[in-house]
Amino acid sequence: MSADSPHLGILGGGQLAQMLALAALPLGVRVTVLEPDAQAPARLCATHLHAPYTDAAGLDALAACDAVTLEFENVPVEALTALEGRVPVRPGRGLLERSKHRAREKEALRAAGAQTAPFMVIETGTDLDGALERVGGQGILKTSELGYDGKGQARVSDTAGLRVAWDELGRVPCVLEGLVQFRREVSLAVARGPDGALAFGPLTQNVHRDGILRTSLFLEGDPHEAQAREIAGRVAQAWALEGLMTLEFFQLPGGELLVNEVAPRVHNSGHLTQDGGGVSQFEAQVRAVLGLPLADWRPLHPCAMVNIIGIEGPDGQNLGPDWAGIDALPGTRLHLYHKAWRAGRKLGHVNLVAADEATLRERLAILEEFIP
Amino acid sequence: MSADSPHLGILGGGQLAQMLALAALPLGVRVTVLEPDAQAPARLCATHLHAPYTDAAGLDALAACDAVTLEFENVPVEALTALEGRVPVRPGRGLLERSKHRAREKEALRAAGAQTAPFMVIETGTDLDGALERVGGQGILKTSELGYDGKGQARVSDTAGLRVAWDELGRVPCVLEGLVQFRREVSLAVARGPDGALAFGPLTQNVHRDGILRTSLFLEGDPHEAQAREIAGRVAQAWALEGLMTLEFFQLPGGELLVNEVAPRVHNSGHLTQDGGGVSQFEAQVRAVLGLPLADWRPLHPCAMVNIIGIEGPDGQNLGPDWAGIDALPGTRLHLYHKAWRAGRKLGHVNLVAADEATLRERLAILEEFIP
Repeated sequence: MSADSPHLGILGGGQLAQMLALAALPLGVRVTVLEPDAQAPARLCATHLHAPYTDAAGLDALAACDAVTLEFENVPVEALTALEGRVPVRPGRGLLERSKHRAREKEALRAAGAQTAPFMVIETGTDLDGALERVGGQGILKTSELGYDGKGQARVSDTAGLRVAWDELGRVPCVLEGLVQFRREVSLAVARGPDGALAFGPLTQNVHRDGILRTSLFLEGDPHEAQAREIAGRVAQAWALEGLMTLEFFQLPGGELLVNEVAPRVHNSGHLTQDGGGVSQFEAQVRAVLGLPLADWRPLHPCAMVNIIGIEGPDGQNLGPDWAGIDALPGTRLHLYHKAWRAGRKLGHVNLVAADEATLRERLAILEEFIP
Repeated sequence: MSADSPHLGILGGGQLAQMLALAALPLGVRVTVLEPDAQAPARLCATHLHAPYTDAAGLDALAACDAVTLEFENVPVEALTALEGRVPVRPGRGLLERSKHRAREKEALRAAGAQTAPFMVIETGTDLDGALERVGGQGILKTSELGYDGKGQARVSDTAGLRVAWDELGRVPCVLEGLVQFRREVSLAVARGPDGALAFGPLTQNVHRDGILRTSLFLEGDPHEAQAREIAGRVAQAWALEGLMTLEFFQLPGGELLVNEVAPRVHNSGHLTQDGGGVSQFEAQVRAVLGLPLADWRPLHPCAMVNIIGIEGPDGQNLGPDWAGIDALPGTRLHLYHKAWRAGRKLGHVNLVAADEATLRERLAILEEFIP
């Protein structure tokens, strides 16, 4: 950190960019986002270049920043090309292209020595033959690109079903992942500075609902954190990460961690770091991208997060949370994104803190009742 | 809290407004500030009405908000008059006029049953006769209005010196306060909603240097917190506070608390609430002003704050902090205001957290070495 005012550019202006900007300002960092949506959440706390991601003037403005990062991996390649050689983009193009393509990502994870579920790359109809058997007889077919929050995927348990699923996904390149019987889903983020220094976030336990993250939980002293750090650190070094990335894992009944997905950025499962008394994942990404000093970021006490997702009631009405209940429950911290309501949309999250695990679990059970 | 997007107006756009806006956004609250300085810190995270406080169009825009608050008490009375009856201004005009006038404030504190140091109101030359004896023989002469951070005051120990001091202060209305031998300075904030509900911040211990706050410290279980809460609650009720105000106290050797000053807003001594794992004073003010549910806001673990003030070195250069040292010290949280450097100016602060008091004190001793 210096007394100068570094300037961070962000491709994208959604809630992750909003929270990156909110974390950057107190560090003395100015933020500019390039984002085509006039109502994007980050407009409220950053200079908003209201233009397509490929807009030449917008990219020129980002190129004048000290460094550029992103809040989503599906940045058009033209944007990255236009910035190349003019400003450090962190993470860099190679890592981004890998992490937005499931097949390449899994191959690169294995090359780095991390384990994944069994998978088969499906590019042509003949790739379907025998694929399901080779991944263990049951699987999930996922498009290689552009899938998120459970979109672009289908569960299959026989070859006929696999063929139907591939047709329905439009016969685009896919990955067939073997279905893993896991004990729990956990995640952990790693940051790596341009100097190669590594730092880690906490291990969180995650529960999904309908393919979207519902709850994350941080408890002190998780016995599998060391294993997750070891894997994340190895991948970050092998991929020459500059910035922050989050690894989602399946933990097998024997304790072993398989990498499920990698996001080259802050992640919904790390939002609880905003209120745990430690540095947040957003500050960690800002620091890593700008080459500021890094240290492990972890909560000082147990904490959790529950997502607020737009839920449509039986009569089409917005089934919102019980706001009064949330406000009255000790330890809740509200984070709303200033987005218009839409069914299935992430509208905000509630972080929850407590001095000890038992109190946190009691409060979390109540909080989950308040959020449909 | 509701799913609607409340709109908060703020008179002033300095660092307090900036931090109010940073706390308001995650609550789903939009913020507009009226502030004549083009480079004001709050411009980075709020809609900035760049105009004088008495600008008609600017005041119209504030009048369209759900409520208006302020970050400093010396708001021109014309601005308050223009808003009257159009939008709730919290705290209200009566309380503001009292808290920007030392004599009226002290009289109103006593009327509410709070104790203050002995004082004499000095409005004419004849008020000086015998005044020093009546406050105990030594005192501090302070202008009734517009003094802050040690400006507009002089220490006096005889009547000749008192006359000189009054001349130097321009013979404006003053208060002569008796010098109090105190054991420590502490402060505590109280918030009161429009419904009369009260909530309190933590008791902090404060150390000043050259009339400006240098360090604040929060430790769990301070035996004098109950007394401070009782006084603050009594004054808030008597003054019909709507919003948040901070009381600064002198603690006498016997333990008794005298009220030194009242700020009708968040206060530098409460900045440590940003990183203690609890709700911050900024969120508390936003909630109180908008009539959102309130609860006591207090850190979950020991924490402290050290101000970063512009210090001019012997050759006129900027003696900045040791940024690398601050970054390397565990538990530091940086808050920079994006203000140009000037000697004597508050440029930012560093909050410090630790899991226990002993660790906090060790780290604080090191941190103080890093900040000149």
